[in-house]
Amino acid sequence: MTGGLITDLYELTMAANYLRRGMNGPATFSLFVRDLPPDRGYLVACGLEDCLAFVEDYGFTEEDLDYLREEQHFDTATLRALEKLRFTGDVWAVPEGRVVFPGEPLLEVTAPIAEAQLVETVVLNHLTFQTSIATKAARCARAAGAARVIDFSFRRTQGIDSGLAVARASYIAGFAGTSNVEAARRHGLPAVGTMAHSFVEAFPDEQAAFEAFTADFPDRTTLLVDTYDTLDGVRAAIRTALRAGGPGLLSGIRLDSGDLGALAVQARHLLDQAGMSGTRIVASGGLDEFSIADLTAAAAPIDVYGVGTRMGVSADAPSLDSAYKLVAFEGRPVMKLSTGKATAPGAKQVYRRAERDVITLRDEPAPHGTHPLLLPVMRGGRRISPAEPLTRARERCEADINALPAPITRLRRPETATVRLSPRLEQTRDDLRADLLSRVRQARTREMIDDGA
Amino acid sequence: MTGGLITDLYELTMAANYLRRGMNGPATFSLFVRDLPPDRGYLVACGLEDCLAFVEDYGFTEEDLDYLREEQHFDTATLRALEKLRFTGDVWAVPEGRVVFPGEPLLEVTAPIAEAQLVETVVLNHLTFQTSIATKAARCARAAGAARVIDFSFRRTQGIDSGLAVARASYIAGFAGTSNVEAARRHGLPAVGTMAHSFVEAFPDEQAAFEAFTADFPDRTTLLVDTYDTLDGVRAAIRTALRAGGPGLLSGIRLDSGDLGALAVQARHLLDQAGMSGTRIVASGGLDEFSIADLTAAAAPIDVYGVGTRMGVSADAPSLDSAYKLVAFEGRPVMKLSTGKATAPGAKQVYRRAERDVITLRDEPAPHGTHPLLLPVMRGGRRISPAEPLTRARERCEADINALPAPITRLRRPETATVRLSPRLEQTRDDLRADLLSRVRQARTREMIDDGA
Repeated sequence: MTGGLITDLYELTMAANYLRRGMNGPATFSLFVRDLPPDRGYLVACGLEDCLAFVEDYGFTEEDLDYLREEQHFDTATLRALEKLRFTGDVWAVPEGRVVFPGEPLLEVTAPIAEAQLVETVVLNHLTFQTSIATKAARCARAAGAARVIDFSFRRTQGIDSGLAVARASYIAGFAGTSNVEAARRHGLPAVGTMAHSFVEAFPDEQAAFEAFTADFPDRTTLLVDTYDTLDGVRAAIRTALRAGGPGLLSGIRLDSGDLGALAVQARHLLDQAGMSGTRIVASGGLDEFSIADLTAAAAPIDVYGVGTRMGVSADAPSLDSAYKLVAFEGRPVMKLSTGKATAPGAKQVYRRAERDVITLRDEPAPHGTHPLLLPVMRGGRRISPAEPLTRARERCEADINALPAPITRLRRPETATVRLSPRLEQTRDDLRADLLSRVRQARTREMIDDGA
Repeated sequence: MTGGLITDLYELTMAANYLRRGMNGPATFSLFVRDLPPDRGYLVACGLEDCLAFVEDYGFTEEDLDYLREEQHFDTATLRALEKLRFTGDVWAVPEGRVVFPGEPLLEVTAPIAEAQLVETVVLNHLTFQTSIATKAARCARAAGAARVIDFSFRRTQGIDSGLAVARASYIAGFAGTSNVEAARRHGLPAVGTMAHSFVEAFPDEQAAFEAFTADFPDRTTLLVDTYDTLDGVRAAIRTALRAGGPGLLSGIRLDSGDLGALAVQARHLLDQAGMSGTRIVASGGLDEFSIADLTAAAAPIDVYGVGTRMGVSADAPSLDSAYKLVAFEGRPVMKLSTGKATAPGAKQVYRRAERDVITLRDEPAPHGTHPLLLPVMRGGRRISPAEPLTRARERCEADINALPAPITRLRRPETATVRLSPRLEQTRDDLRADLLSRVRQARTREMIDDGA
């Protein structure tokens, strides 16, 4: 058991309150994204695997309890309850790689309220972050058309674990590989890489650097050509290959600065002239889906895009407006009335037919010809099935995005799908809102009388 | 020894090349930020501690070497060399919490080139990310004036480790505490928190929730008042405290939606009327330095700002244009000529007098009345001194920012400091550039003759 303190303080404070009162009734929390950033028409669900691993193992160590006793002044009865606490709930979730829209639950937890509350922080964190990245990466992969896209982000992701998650999320979203060796090992991804400018600079000249590299790694000679002068670099790469054994020896060249489109055309011309039509052109340097789309539209002869920082932090939308909201407690639906933040109550399901989705209460029957997005993934605190191979999520992502209409996949100011609520869900929400408003008014009147006003 | 594969594939490929050739000469790499994002006038250095911990422990496990053999086809001689590889170099760095400007080295590594190359990815990652966050957090803390600022970002940082680093960085930058319990424990930070809307909803009504909370945690009763109607919530909080024992019992109320400035004025009025002038008003919900500055300018009676996602991912500038560049190899200065990416060569120092900095070669004498920013922190692969208390970095940050002139601390489109290069550094750069250009021209001519053109 680990992770007890990997949460916000208020989760622990509230859990203490619930435990002390014996409030063990089942609570359902629903995790969803309220609104999309301006340049997003859809989301690619990602992060579930890390959520399940965390939740399944959640619990407190001796050191955790010592800290709560000594530094946070938790009382002995609460500490004893926390010592025994495990996550015993059920989880329904949208599988990784699926396309989802605003308002649709990505995950729903039903558990004794203290347990459901304690895992909130981590569950929100993984799903918000990894969904941001998978979505950004899917846009990059799609913008590249027939070209391949690879993850070069590790040096500027927001932390090391973040880099590992980005490599995985971008692979689900259609990337062909990653420069991140630890991520490649851990998730079985293709590891990719070329050379740095420093390598060229460490040799007396560019040609010497290329020759050394080609001698040592004849099966992976992608040479970085822009350290001094790009087209001179291309010529040096060509000469190196021809002298070392022939045109087949140069698998690729990499452009990392300047006008990538124009340089790619000139480099392609030089390579073709030298009989190296099989040599790939790799482009990198500040790329994202917008610049890739421009290069694709200009038919730039680029075979591989190395995409770094902007994908790895989802630069134009580094977070999402996600929420983890109590929607039912002890069998009754729940919602809040806070300005602009009201949530539809009750455990839910999403049914999809093509891209038209309807959100229903969990127990409503499936409308004809639809399939459910949320599947049971954990029961009684245990996973229902082991982690699936990443390729499964990757295939799902590709199929779901291919099914989207153009206005939704547009890069700039896309539309998003219109998600309906079922009549029963709407009715439940309206009834509860009316009830809450009337109770607020009654309480106000009662207190005014009490206060003698 | 750990972390061998926590790097980009090309670092390993290049290292293999260097090791095989016996290229063990000392290389100096300089890490700096090229240009600032539009709304940044300065940076707060952060992340050094994690860099040093990683570098000091860097090495390959049996499993790492197996992966390189089996999946990446590294040869036996290279694997044997990697097995023995440790980081044996020297590191100079700007201490955490100091203000730095574009072009100024944050860190310089001098080591056998393979070692210096292998740690690049992680060193760049930590310094880029944590400097982004510390800078964003410093802007938030400063915008709040006399009010306190606390970190509420954990649920939407880019990963869990990221959340821990954000709590630490924001504390260095002047935050008063964090909701992140694990970070609070690990770094000895004040842990802070209130309650969630779900807590209020789990009780029959707001008043019942407030009473339960106050009974259990009479020393930390900050009540969230906006679940149904904010001012009704304030009244309920006041009643709860008065019934439970008196005005002193309510430490704070939290506003999390709506017009925070207007609601704070009304809430303050209600609290003061009830004799609760000591009760603090906490505001949260999508805040950043810009919205905080607006509230400060409007003299909103807010005592504490809970700042979440926008600080935790540095939303308007989630990364920095950082670089880790070879500047010297085997005693000779080095630079590249790539379009827009040229770097001044040689190991460096930065001397500061007030906010006027000059970048010099490392061995130049200090100009009169200045002090150096870069200090030796690691020698022969070992740290020179143990990790310092966080309060030291926090004090440095406060002092450095207080010394900045207003045009640099302005939130929107600030100026940045003009950083001069010393005459000797300029001369070294110009000489090297001329030399490289002439060598590029000579190589071109030679190859044209070789090619029979």
